[in-house]
Amino acid sequence: MLPINNPIVVQHLLKDQIDAISPISDEEFAYILSHFVVKKLKKHAFLVQQGDHVKYDYFVMKGCLKAYVADEDTGKEFIYQFAVEDWWVTDREAYFKKSAATINVDCLEDCEVLGITLENREKLGAEMWKYEHFLSVKANWGYNSLQKRLQMMIMGNAKKRYESFIQQYPHLYNRIPKSFIASYLGVSRETLSRLYAL
Amino acid sequence: MLPINNPIVVQHLLKDQIDAISPISDEEFAYILSHFVVKKLKKHAFLVQQGDHVKYDYFVMKGCLKAYVADEDTGKEFIYQFAVEDWWVTDREAYFKKSAATINVDCLEDCEVLGITLENREKLGAEMWKYEHFLSVKANWGYNSLQKRLQMMIMGNAKKRYESFIQQYPHLYNRIPKSFIASYLGVSRETLSRLYAL
Repeated sequence: MLPINNPIVVQHLLKDQIDAISPISDEEFAYILSHFVVKKLKKHAFLVQQGDHVKYDYFVMKGCLKAYVADEDTGKEFIYQFAVEDWWVTDREAYFKKSAATINVDCLEDCEVLGITLENREKLGAEMWKYEHFLSVKANWGYNSLQKRLQMMIMGNAKKRYESFIQQYPHLYNRIPKSFIASYLGVSRETLSRLYAL
Repeated sequence: MLPINNPIVVQHLLKDQIDAISPISDEEFAYILSHFVVKKLKKHAFLVQQGDHVKYDYFVMKGCLKAYVADEDTGKEFIYQFAVEDWWVTDREAYFKKSAATINVDCLEDCEVLGITLENREKLGAEMWKYEHFLSVKANWGYNSLQKRLQMMIMGNAKKRYESFIQQYPHLYNRIPKSFIASYLGVSRETLSRLYAL
């Protein structure tokens, strides 16, 4: 893990994301960024591993990751979430409760992420209303997306789930192996191929 | 809808909830409370109805409600959430985006709720860091609960879902009709009876 040594390179994505909710100055962003560390990982590496202490919430600068849990009985993997540039990923519950990770996050490509500890997150939130507001709004958006995903998984058939995914994440479809998309959608690889051929 | 005319009665639950995250004085709470309206509803009444403009996020003072969506094709209901005293409920997406409701929320008992508009929510958050922090933390907790629910619905069999519900919400089981619990768990009424008899 490296201290941030090139703020120019990493500045853009995160600042844009914060700006869209709470406009901030370059100085404010530089201060925020000083609370993050940079982490670079190779394809297949784990960012979070089940059982580990989860120290950071991660903002993705480069690459693509999947967050998943494996069923103890069946060994079947269920993918919660993919994360690409401009997305956040971690085991949120473990991060907030300082408990051991119950999910895994690994890299589908070489990745570069920015990590922030809970202490620094809370420190920034306490010091800057704008940052606390950003966190609050992001958490609400995340909740809404997750609720839609829950609804789709419970009520949507395979075709609806597939169409909804393509519509929502057109840029992910060719980037992520189909077997992982099938796991994310809760359908078999064969069903996905059939839908794709339609 | 009535202005709040008896702060003594309604004060307790909401203040306790905020206090647990952001300790506030009685004066601060009185100020917060002045941004809410009281709404009383009879059993079976709708708090939110599909297609409606969603003006308020609601804190439940008394009663029990269910938030659900009906499948257009099958007519099957899927219950997202129950809400009892000390919980929040609304169509969150419609509330935040000022769009029409895509879900329904109705009363399983006579209910009393406190409603806050998005404008007042944002006003309070902007004026009081403590309130913005409360909103941020609550949103994160909500996200974590929803992620657990998603995992349980995708990976847990009927028995696991049932056991998890009983463990998490022991006080709800005897308060809510079994057919609604079955819908919440995504199992048939018959399966639920079988599990209950075990």
